[in-house]
Amino acid sequence: MAAAATGDVKLLGHRMSLFVTRVQIALNLKKVGYEFVQVEVHGQKSEILVKSNPVYKKIPVLIHQGKPVCESTIIVEYIDEMWTSEPHILPSHPLDRAVARFWAAYIDDKLLALLKALAVEAAEESSKAETVDQVTEVLQLLEDAFAECSHGKDCFGGDTIGYVDIVLGSCLGWIKAVEEMENVRLLDEKKVPLLVGWAERFLQDKAVKEVTPEIDEYVKYAKMISASAR
Amino acid sequence: MAAAATGDVKLLGHRMSLFVTRVQIALNLKKVGYEFVQVEVHGQKSEILVKSNPVYKKIPVLIHQGKPVCESTIIVEYIDEMWTSEPHILPSHPLDRAVARFWAAYIDDKLLALLKALAVEAAEESSKAETVDQVTEVLQLLEDAFAECSHGKDCFGGDTIGYVDIVLGSCLGWIKAVEEMENVRLLDEKKVPLLVGWAERFLQDKAVKEVTPEIDEYVKYAKMISASAR
Repeated sequence: MAAAATGDVKLLGHRMSLFVTRVQIALNLKKVGYEFVQVEVHGQKSEILVKSNPVYKKIPVLIHQGKPVCESTIIVEYIDEMWTSEPHILPSHPLDRAVARFWAAYIDDKLLALLKALAVEAAEESSKAETVDQVTEVLQLLEDAFAECSHGKDCFGGDTIGYVDIVLGSCLGWIKAVEEMENVRLLDEKKVPLLVGWAERFLQDKAVKEVTPEIDEYVKYAKMISASAR
Repeated sequence: MAAAATGDVKLLGHRMSLFVTRVQIALNLKKVGYEFVQVEVHGQKSEILVKSNPVYKKIPVLIHQGKPVCESTIIVEYIDEMWTSEPHILPSHPLDRAVARFWAAYIDDKLLALLKALAVEAAEESSKAETVDQVTEVLQLLEDAFAECSHGKDCFGGDTIGYVDIVLGSCLGWIKAVEEMENVRLLDEKKVPLLVGWAERFLQDKAVKEVTPEIDEYVKYAKMISASAR
């Protein structure tokens, strides 16, 4: 299917949201042109956001031919199903698809809460050290998942960036920001060598690079959120 | 595709788990024969469960040709993709699929936590009344979702039971148990008439009826869990 003309596809988002980054990467991989609409997510939310996602009032929202699609992983699946040309984001076999969905849900369920706690929530040093240990455990499981999913190739998705790559890869900026802010090593070459290599490759991909903020932008943003929450 | 021979498909579960019920309904709809393996989920968990779902150690786990698939909604999608004969569980159009996935995630995210609070957690009467109000709001949104998804037909999935029917329908036993235990009306004909009609039809379907426990079984089970948690 040909790439959509810009105007057909709008993305409601904010540059620093990793959930929005996921959608941008998927659109880039599929070479779908889109209009990025930066919306207000703190305080008084933008009218178009409230109207397009009345249940959660959250970004990202993809508006395609006037119809809104919400929730980042659901949007990524939508993009894969709507623009069926290669590269495919989900694997083709039902078992591989189930495994990819399992790890994506695991990342959203476990890793994100831990990263959020480290990046923007005020906590005692002892509790932070515990959270860092939990992140290390999660990454260890994801190291094993990489070995299982990649079949010795470059990505969770095999030869090309796929669903788990997008879901985990969108967290890399926050992981690196936390490393800098907390002066800890999370992506440790000695503990998770496969993930370290994968992360380097992922961040160099053109579809990823052009939509991923620099680490110091994440650090600055985390400090801003953290300060406004106090 | 022909129905799988029993032996190919094992389901690790427990009769009272609504997550397991979802998988059973999907297997029944697709006429897939399976062996039900009741496992221990409290205290010392069954070895086959720990081995098949080492990350969460939770039911349900579908084991198909020796390979485990975990997490109820992921299993239901797997079943739909693996046994491709009718009835289809997910809609065919990407937008309808995204909408179905959105409401399924909403049910798991919002409704289940509220039902759990009412069914098994000890709480003050005033806090319970507040939770009941929240359930009412959630059901109101789902009433609107039914109008949107069903296109005037019998099910969220249109003419036949689909993804949202299974995900919400599996909660009906718990909803009715909470109505009985708390002496409240949640599925109120005056507030959510479409859902009330849908629920009656859903529970009469053969694929559903034979795997859904009676309300008094749920009540008994909720009291047992509640007592053991104190």
